Amino acid sequence: MTLEKEIEQIARSARTAAYRLALISSDEKNRALSAMAAALHREKDYLKKENEKDLAAARKKNYSKALVDRLTLTDKVIAEMAESLKATAALKDPVGEVLSTVERPNGLLIKKVRTPIGVVGIIYESRPNVTSDCIGLCLKSGNAAILKGGKEAIFSNIAIFRVLKKALAGSSVPADAIHLIESTDRKAVLFLLGLDKYVDVIVPRGGEELIRFVAENSTIPVIKHYKGICHTYVSEHADLNMAHKICYNAKVQKPGVCNAMETLLVHRESAIRFLPLMADAYRKAGVEIRGCPMTRKIVKQGVKPATAQDWETEYLDLILSVKVVDSLKEAIDHINTHGSHHSDAIVTDDKKEAEEFLKSVDSACLYVNASTRFTDGFQFGMGAEIGISTDKLHARGPMALEELTTYKYVVYGNGQIRQ
Amino acid sequence: MTLEKEIEQIARSARTAAYRLALISSDEKNRALSAMAAALHREKDYLKKENEKDLAAARKKNYSKALVDRLTLTDKVIAEMAESLKATAALKDPVGEVLSTVERPNGLLIKKVRTPIGVVGIIYESRPNVTSDCIGLCLKSGNAAILKGGKEAIFSNIAIFRVLKKALAGSSVPADAIHLIESTDRKAVLFLLGLDKYVDVIVPRGGEELIRFVAENSTIPVIKHYKGICHTYVSEHADLNMAHKICYNAKVQKPGVCNAMETLLVHRESAIRFLPLMADAYRKAGVEIRGCPMTRKIVKQGVKPATAQDWETEYLDLILSVKVVDSLKEAIDHINTHGSHHSDAIVTDDKKEAEEFLKSVDSACLYVNASTRFTDGFQFGMGAEIGISTDKLHARGPMALEELTTYKYVVYGNGQIRQ
Repeated sequence: MTLEKEIEQIARSARTAAYRLALISSDEKNRALSAMAAALHREKDYLKKENEKDLAAARKKNYSKALVDRLTLTDKVIAEMAESLKATAALKDPVGEVLSTVERPNGLLIKKVRTPIGVVGIIYESRPNVTSDCIGLCLKSGNAAILKGGKEAIFSNIAIFRVLKKALAGSSVPADAIHLIESTDRKAVLFLLGLDKYVDVIVPRGGEELIRFVAENSTIPVIKHYKGICHTYVSEHADLNMAHKICYNAKVQKPGVCNAMETLLVHRESAIRFLPLMADAYRKAGVEIRGCPMTRKIVKQGVKPATAQDWETEYLDLILSVKVVDSLKEAIDHINTHGSHHSDAIVTDDKKEAEEFLKSVDSACLYVNASTRFTDGFQFGMGAEIGISTDKLHARGPMALEELTTYKYVVYGNGQIRQ
Repeated sequence: MTLEKEIEQIARSARTAAYRLALISSDEKNRALSAMAAALHREKDYLKKENEKDLAAARKKNYSKALVDRLTLTDKVIAEMAESLKATAALKDPVGEVLSTVERPNGLLIKKVRTPIGVVGIIYESRPNVTSDCIGLCLKSGNAAILKGGKEAIFSNIAIFRVLKKALAGSSVPADAIHLIESTDRKAVLFLLGLDKYVDVIVPRGGEELIRFVAENSTIPVIKHYKGICHTYVSEHADLNMAHKICYNAKVQKPGVCNAMETLLVHRESAIRFLPLMADAYRKAGVEIRGCPMTRKIVKQGVKPATAQDWETEYLDLILSVKVVDSLKEAIDHINTHGSHHSDAIVTDDKKEAEEFLKSVDSACLYVNASTRFTDGFQFGMGAEIGISTDKLHARGPMALEELTTYKYVVYGNGQIRQ
């Protein structure tokens, strides 16, 4: 069978399974998730053995320590994967929720009911735990899942997938509800992205290059974020001690992630007191600062000049661009123009100012007096997350069970006809 | 200025206006809508004079009477357009609605708040009333609108647009919140479809050809339906008198619309009693029947043989395909395989059977004991409608104010940082 035929067969069988999965009760889905969690525990030696093959290849290729860390399956990582499946089982099943009920003058009763989307494709890189997290979220929300992981984690992903699939055998969830594309040929992704007849949505997770490749080649709707250029604005009404803590956390605690701060905006009135101390703290943490002329004037030393490019750069590193602004409006305009509509924060004690920021900044997640680092499905109380969206249609911000559903209108009549 | 530059300038100014429009109160938006309604009344002679230019061109080109009817602006049509604007003003403003509130253990208060999408592009054919309906819905939901109507209604659309825009002058709604592309060059549409930097969503309304053109050429997300292949399934548990009324209405009352029935499915047990009478009624209404072999056996005369193509055809005319099925499951499979996921009905007195149909058929709108003709924003109590979606992401079924919104998360803290 050609690769193209193989991918098409996977998608077609997922479609068929999705229709059956939509009818399965919450209890049955939860039992399957528990069985999958137990199987991960039971098979941890097998998982670690297969994972070792990926690690050996990674070492041979001289991958960075950070990448090897992300790839490694330890007892702890496997236990967390199992915990995540159990946590997903414990979440409320979104399917069947009645979102609204209207009775029309002609007696028609119109209910808007939450339903699974159908078939969800997930294309991701490196971390093998994504395999079980996404399978868990898709099953719980009644969706069939087609996974395509990265080449560097192929043995781990295949092993995790086989363990989970075997665990399904004893449940009433159809075995074809979950699929892993084992080919590491990039053409496999291309074939999948053209199967809009069978697949309802694609969620890509990974670097900007992967996501652009998916968005540009897909005839299936894609929910995504390209990057996170997150801002913190320290207003002239800010508690500067709080601002210091928040700005330090947003930049330093985990700089390589999409919800870390990349640009700090400071109101002119706060800049003179705030920036020198903040710059000092950043310097001690090894943060490189690239500032506007006013920033360089205030901080005096150790600040490189920021170029126009800096305001639009996601560093994912210990680098920060800093700009002094004259007003809330200038801060808002800067964020709307140069940001990526992901996560942005204001530090202020002025409630009216906070409300104007919240209304005017066009981003998925906006914070008053908190770190942008909280944009995350777990932190938002959604259990796991299947991704984060900076799109505006369907899902915005962290995506989990509800975002994996759509709705249908069911209309009850007693013979109504249109006049 | 080149056409490409002109379209880009329109989109850019709509984007800027959208940010201001998002901050405007419901009262101010409603006052603008009322002023627009009054202006349509006041300027009806001008509107009819400009409309006459389109009608003259249509007569010259020997357009069908149906098309000329759709183009014509009478006093009554103009009054209805004004009424629709007033009705939209009376609807609840969706913007600012708090969809959920979560307080996290760390004290973060997370609110999910409904916001406008931003800039909405609407590409449509023939009916000039779409111009004012869509402007009304977009303004009320806080979105800037860019309209591109059909060539055949260009004078009417320009006139309506000018009247509405002039009416905005006395309000606090920014004038650049509404735009009409006056060029009739198809390239204007192509340029618009590439401006994903400024435009958030495109809603195409019209024939399948237009919609495919838009979907295939847009880098902006498109919400759409290609066609409506709607089914009615008459079960063996149906009240056959009710089934008769419903099936007659769904096919005959207005056959040229997307929610009209195109395929009738009848359970074997009901077919012998139901089909001969139903076929007789259809024949008297001028409906051509194309049936499966069993249908032709039961009805005996006047039924053409249905080809495989018939099950996938939207006739938009007095033509109906008819199939006798052996079970509910066969009916469900037929609809999911051959339908367009738009609107499908079951006629049955068996509640369990109805629930299975509602759960298993993968369509935007499902009816028990009512005509599919009710799929419509007005009929669903949404006021006007901006379109009907058979997509599953973001909006499904009739689309109105809520479907023109997205949400953002606003998070209130008091210094929280990520551990």
